[in-house]
Amino acid sequence: MAEATAKSEYFAGVDLGGTKILTGIFDKDLNCLGRAKVSTKAERGPEEVIERIARCVRDAADECDLELKQIQAAGIGAPGTVDFETGRIIFAPNLQWEDVPLKKILEKELGVPVFVENDGNAAILGIYETELAAKPRHVVGIFLGTGIGGGIILDGKLYSGFSGTAGEIGHMVIQVGGPKCNCGNRGCFEALASRTAIFRRLSEAVADGKKTLLTDSLGPDLKDLRSGDLRKAIKKGDKLVEQIIEEAAEYTGIAVANIINLMNPQVVVLGGGVIDALGDEMMAIVLETAQDYGMSGATKGVDIVASKKGDDAGILGGAVLARRQSK
Amino acid sequence: MAEATAKSEYFAGVDLGGTKILTGIFDKDLNCLGRAKVSTKAERGPEEVIERIARCVRDAADECDLELKQIQAAGIGAPGTVDFETGRIIFAPNLQWEDVPLKKILEKELGVPVFVENDGNAAILGIYETELAAKPRHVVGIFLGTGIGGGIILDGKLYSGFSGTAGEIGHMVIQVGGPKCNCGNRGCFEALASRTAIFRRLSEAVADGKKTLLTDSLGPDLKDLRSGDLRKAIKKGDKLVEQIIEEAAEYTGIAVANIINLMNPQVVVLGGGVIDALGDEMMAIVLETAQDYGMSGATKGVDIVASKKGDDAGILGGAVLARRQSK
Repeated sequence: MAEATAKSEYFAGVDLGGTKILTGIFDKDLNCLGRAKVSTKAERGPEEVIERIARCVRDAADECDLELKQIQAAGIGAPGTVDFETGRIIFAPNLQWEDVPLKKILEKELGVPVFVENDGNAAILGIYETELAAKPRHVVGIFLGTGIGGGIILDGKLYSGFSGTAGEIGHMVIQVGGPKCNCGNRGCFEALASRTAIFRRLSEAVADGKKTLLTDSLGPDLKDLRSGDLRKAIKKGDKLVEQIIEEAAEYTGIAVANIINLMNPQVVVLGGGVIDALGDEMMAIVLETAQDYGMSGATKGVDIVASKKGDDAGILGGAVLARRQSK
Repeated sequence: MAEATAKSEYFAGVDLGGTKILTGIFDKDLNCLGRAKVSTKAERGPEEVIERIARCVRDAADECDLELKQIQAAGIGAPGTVDFETGRIIFAPNLQWEDVPLKKILEKELGVPVFVENDGNAAILGIYETELAAKPRHVVGIFLGTGIGGGIILDGKLYSGFSGTAGEIGHMVIQVGGPKCNCGNRGCFEALASRTAIFRRLSEAVADGKKTLLTDSLGPDLKDLRSGDLRKAIKKGDKLVEQIIEEAAEYTGIAVANIINLMNPQVVVLGGGVIDALGDEMMAIVLETAQDYGMSGATKGVDIVASKKGDDAGILGGAVLARRQSK
């Protein structure tokens, strides 16, 4: 009995991204006791990525002197459409995964129950549970990273739609015929304002002969460019980077307005690596653009805020998911 | 007591459109007993339009040998953002209305309680109540007329959001920098696929010297063009009209995919004057495009259907609203 109680106190949260895997071990009050991070290496295929997830969970447990058998359950947010019941990834363009039985393989690797959600759903759960103390009824989360994910809370509960795939905000087309997206379509929000889109626009501009301070340190191919480099470049007065980030912020503002016009939530939360690194540069433009494109009445009283959880939103959400399912 | 019972059996439904006002008198089982129609004449201003609404309700009552005092309540769908509690129209771009106390003025004119909703909300209520016998949990309605409206049913109930304005599907931007919309922005779905947008594209093509059979009967300025004329022209092999309608159907398919990716409803219902007249020409393209732009998994099992209620959806919805509020 004592062992069962002890076991129920720890949960693993996993944020599976296109670039990196983050894990955290949490107690029942969602305090993070240990964390770990590895690169995703999506190009090596699903089996190897799932092994890396398992290793990263073990590393986080080890970090806080716990063993896997002391973890009651793991929750994981994955970047794509997910069948929550079976824990299969239906389609994850940024991992190039189609129909991958993530829950089944990871449970075998870890020996604990695993619950899989879309990464945007997981992140909004984490933020709602820990950051939105007023518990607004309707909240939409938009997460800008390698891709763009979303999560929807309606009437205080995760809204996942008819077959569990709601919240694919990144694949809302906002520019018909626009740039090609990883999903195969054109003009998706993700193809205009994700880190991938921002980096692509920068590379194209450099190839066109435009000047940026970034090439001084990273070379003409902008190798190992990170979101944080963009913030530093803007602070140093880099006009090209500033312009591209402003445009990404405008597209984000339009996407926020679309969401507000359509769903009229009380709060729109922005998060993810891009907002984490560039929130100060982007949020004022996002707000102004959303106000411009939002319908009279629809935007009134709606809060548009940047999450302060940064990278923790995803792993927190995973832990919320694991804790919820284990009750 | 007998009179009270008799009175409770009749409800008026009003569909206030940018071009025309439709009214119907319904019994408690939502059978339509009488109907009437007048042009809106929005250019004459709110006061006169509201007088015309009242006259149109009286006409419909007269049509079925009833007097206003036998009507228990009226429900009205209006094309814009509505404050449901006060019955004020906050903003209705296609009427050029801002902050109009519709409920208050119309109650004075009619002497019966009036309930005001957004027109898309009213129409989806009417369709849900009378046409979707299986009562799917999550339904989104998209109505293509002079403008484009929408209505959302979640968990079997009208979803109107934080401040009651949800469902403004027409003002979802799908082509940043695209054609100007009546709302003041550019590239809204409404500016690409409403009757207004279709007529504008036709006029521009004719001005550019493109040929269409429509000018034979309507002259070069396409005076008094109606959606039905477009259907007839396509049937006669008019390539220009066919192309413009195909493009509107593609934009509609993209908007449907955006909704499905975001909200993953079980059913998307299309309606309104444009679909009523051109559904046979448009629906196959809408379905194909929505399938192309919808994410794997998100579109699976989702029904995309044209409402068979045609113009009746709006007045039916008004009656549902009146009946619901009067209980």
